[in-house]
Amino acid sequence: MSFVTVAPDSDFSVQNLPYGVFTTPENPRPRIGVAIGDLILDLSAVKHFFDGPVLKNVQNVFDEPTLNAFMGLGRAAWSEARQMLQKILSKSEPLLRDNAELRAKALVPQSTASMHLPAAIGDYTDFYSSKNHAYNVGCMFRDPKTALNPNWTHLPVGYHGRSSSVVISGTPVHRPNGQLRPDETKPPVFGPCRLFDFELEMGFFTGPASTFGQPVTMDKAEDHIFGMVLLNDWSARDIQKWEYVPLGPFLAKNLGTSISPWVVTMDALKPFLTDNIPQDPTPLPYLQHSNKYNFDIKLDVSIMADGLTKPAVITRSNFKHMYWTMKQQLVHHTVTGCNLNPGDLMGSGTISGLTADSYGSMLELCWKGTKTVDLGNGITRKFLQDGDEVIFHGYCEGDGYRVGFGTCTGKVLPAHPIS
Amino acid sequence: MSFVTVAPDSDFSVQNLPYGVFTTPENPRPRIGVAIGDLILDLSAVKHFFDGPVLKNVQNVFDEPTLNAFMGLGRAAWSEARQMLQKILSKSEPLLRDNAELRAKALVPQSTASMHLPAAIGDYTDFYSSKNHAYNVGCMFRDPKTALNPNWTHLPVGYHGRSSSVVISGTPVHRPNGQLRPDETKPPVFGPCRLFDFELEMGFFTGPASTFGQPVTMDKAEDHIFGMVLLNDWSARDIQKWEYVPLGPFLAKNLGTSISPWVVTMDALKPFLTDNIPQDPTPLPYLQHSNKYNFDIKLDVSIMADGLTKPAVITRSNFKHMYWTMKQQLVHHTVTGCNLNPGDLMGSGTISGLTADSYGSMLELCWKGTKTVDLGNGITRKFLQDGDEVIFHGYCEGDGYRVGFGTCTGKVLPAHPIS
Ligand SMILES: [Ca+2]
Ligand SMILES: [Ca+2]
Ligand SMILES: [Mg+2]
Ligand SMILES: [Mg+2]
Ligand code: NI
Repeated sequence: MSFVTVAPDSDFSVQNLPYGVFTTPENPRPRIGVAIGDLILDLSAVKHFFDGPVLKNVQNVFDEPTLNAFMGLGRAAWSEARQMLQKILSKSEPLLRDNAELRAKALVPQSTASMHLPAAIGDYTDFYSSKNHAYNVGCMFRDPKTALNPNWTHLPVGYHGRSSSVVISGTPVHRPNGQLRPDETKPPVFGPCRLFDFELEMGFFTGPASTFGQPVTMDKAEDHIFGMVLLNDWSARDIQKWEYVPLGPFLAKNLGTSISPWVVTMDALKPFLTDNIPQDPTPLPYLQHSNKYNFDIKLDVSIMADGLTKPAVITRSNFKHMYWTMKQQLVHHTVTGCNLNPGDLMGSGTISGLTADSYGSMLELCWKGTKTVDLGNGITRKFLQDGDEVIFHGYCEGDGYRVGFGTCTGKVLPAHPIS
Repeated sequence: MSFVTVAPDSDFSVQNLPYGVFTTPENPRPRIGVAIGDLILDLSAVKHFFDGPVLKNVQNVFDEPTLNAFMGLGRAAWSEARQMLQKILSKSEPLLRDNAELRAKALVPQSTASMHLPAAIGDYTDFYSSKNHAYNVGCMFRDPKTALNPNWTHLPVGYHGRSSSVVISGTPVHRPNGQLRPDETKPPVFGPCRLFDFELEMGFFTGPASTFGQPVTMDKAEDHIFGMVLLNDWSARDIQKWEYVPLGPFLAKNLGTSISPWVVTMDALKPFLTDNIPQDPTPLPYLQHSNKYNFDIKLDVSIMADGLTKPAVITRSNFKHMYWTMKQQLVHHTVTGCNLNPGDLMGSGTISGLTADSYGSMLELCWKGTKTVDLGNGITRKFLQDGDEVIFHGYCEGDGYRVGFGTCTGKVLPAHPIS
C-alpha cells in the first residue's frame, strides 16, 4: 500500500508504476515520471534516492527527456528502480511521505500534466501475430480454406513501419488523402481515404542495444523487453489495397500510429502471465521457448461520436489471443543480424478474439462493410467518420488492484482539401 | 581551381564538396568534413569562416557529430556553405591557403581517417523506382505480359526499411541465417541464405523536418532534398520469397544496408541534370512536375573475390534510368501526412539499365540462376559467395572534372554457425 491514495479501479496502483515523459505548465522541460493513482512522481526530483549498486552512478538517466537511456541499462537496473519506487511510495516509508517540501515538488497531478512520447523511437516494427485477425482478413479477401498464408504459422509475419509518425495519445489524426482505386475497371483516383480504420494493438519497447550482425537468441530475449503500451495502428484500407503489392503496406500506415503514454514494465505484468497459445506446427528451434510469455490484459475500444453523450464500447478483446509471443517476435526480428536499440517499438498486430464482439478493427467488426456497428442513440458505423474519437483502454485485474495502461486516444480530423 | 591538388579523375573536385563524418587516430571525436582531392577539410576547425547571414549564428552545426542539424537548416544555408567552401578552398583566396598552422589542423588525409554514418538516420525508406528492374523481376517471377503490377506506373512503390542496420561503407556483412523453403512440398528449414545478393541503389538524405499531418507538395519538394549517396540494399532472395506475402520484405532486407560516406549535395549535381523519363500514363496531379529532376550519374559494381588479382566489374548502370524522380518519391511519401525529419534516408530501388550488362543485382545478372556471371580468371558467380567484396562506384563526368561519390563497399562474411 502507498501513502498516495489509489482507487481500487485506478490503472496506476503501486503494483504498476509505469514510466512516462511529461511536462507541466510551470515547467515545460520534458522529464520522466511514474504514474501512481491520479499523480505523477517526478523522477528528476527524486533521482538521488536511487542509490542502489546498479543505479547510484547513473542517476542522470532520470534527468533525461526520454526513457531511452534508462531502457538501455537493462533488467538489473529496471528491477532495482522498481524496488526503490515501491519503497519510497510505501505507506511505511517516511522518506517522501514526511517531506512536505519534496512532496509538493515531486508529486504532480496527472490532470495538470501533458504527456509526450516516452522514448525517441529509432525503429518501429509492426507484427501480425493474432491468428484470429489474420484468419478473418484472409476469409474476407480470399476464402476460409486458404485464409492463412502458408508462412503464417511458421514465423511471426511483420513489416517495418514509420517511426517519425508514431504520436502520443491525444494527437488528432487527419483522414489521409491518397491513391484509391474504387473501380477496378478504371484508373486510380486521388482523394480522401473512404475506409479509415483503427487497429487495436499493443506494443513493446526494447531495452539494451544488440550488436549489428549478432542475433538475439531465445535465452536472452527477455533481457531486451522493457515494457508495453497500447498502440493504435491507424489504417487506410483502400489506400493499402491499391499500393501493397508486392512490397507491403506503406502510405496506408505511415499517416500516424498512436501509443499510450505510460510504459508498463514486464516486472509489473508478471502476475498476469498466462499460457501461451499452443503452436501447430511446432516452430523451428530458434523460435521455441517453454516458459509462459503470454499476458492476460483486458482490452476494449470505444468510439465517441457526434450525437453520443458518452463513448460507446464497440469491442472487448484481450492480449492473450496473441499466437506469437513477444520473445518470438524479437528473436525472429534479429535472427538475420538486425540490431536493436533502446526504445525501438514493436507492435503486436491487431488483437482479435474468437468471437465477433472481440474483433480488433472496424474492418472485421463491419465484416468488410457488410454489417453495421451499433454505437447507440441510433448511430451506426462501418468505418470511421470525421470527428470520431477512438479510445483504447487496457488493464490487468489483480486481487483488489489493477495494473493498467490508461487510454490511447485519437480523434479523426477531416482530410485536407485537395488543391 | 583549388590550391589543394585534385587529380582530373578524382571524385572530389572543388565542384563537388561532399559532406561526411570522420574521425582520425589522433582525434576520435566524430566531426564533419568535406572531401577535396585526397584530403578532408575539417569543418569543426574552420567553422568561424561561415559568417554569412544564414550561418553566422548557427556555426555550431559544424561542431556536431552528425550532419542532421546542418541538413535541417535548409537550402539557403546549404548554398551559403557551398559558396564559402569554394571561396576558402580556391587558389586565389589566402585565408586558408596562406595559414600553415590552420592548414595543418584543418586538412586531413583521407587515408588516415575513418568514416562514419553521415547522419543519425531516423527513418529509412526503400523505393522500387527503376522500371527495368521491376520489369525484370516481374518477368522472372511472373511473365512478361504481367511483369509490372498494375500500381507500378501510377505511384512510386516503396516500403519502410530498418534504419538501425544502415551501416557505413566498409562494414562487413554476415550472410544471414533465416527461414527458407527450397522445396515447396516440404516445411521451411532454418539455415544460411543461399541466394545472397546486392542491390545497386542510390539514396538521398532529407533536409528540414515537415509537420505531422501536412503533406509536402511538389513545389516544396526540392527544399527537403539535401544530397545523395551510393546505397547497397543487401538482399536475401530466398528468405524474402518465403516471408514477404502479404506484408512485404522484412528480414530479407534488415540484415544490413550499406551507404557511401560522402553526401554529394544537389547543388553539386545540378550540372548533371538530364531529362526525366517520359511517364505513361501521366501521373495524378500531386505527382506531376515539369522541371528536370533526373541525373546522369555513372554507376558500376565490381566484385573482389578469392583468386582475383583485382576487382572484376560486373555491371555498369546509370542513375538516369530511374522512372520516378526523387521529388515524386518524397511527395508521395508524405501525401498522407507522414512527416520527415532531417537525415531520413530514401533509397531509389535497384537501378537497372535496359541491357543485360547494366542490371543492378545478381538476381538479374544471373537471371535467377540460369546464367553465370564471369569474374575472369575462370571464376564465375550466380549469387554472392562468402569472402566476396562488393564495390559500388559512382560519378558524374564534367568537362575536365568529376563530381563523384567514392565507393560503397562491403565484404560478405560467412553465416554464424547454428547452435
Ligand atoms: Ca497493424
Ligand atoms: Ca531495394
Ligand atoms: Mg500506423
Ligand atoms: Mg537493406
Ligand atoms: Ni491540420
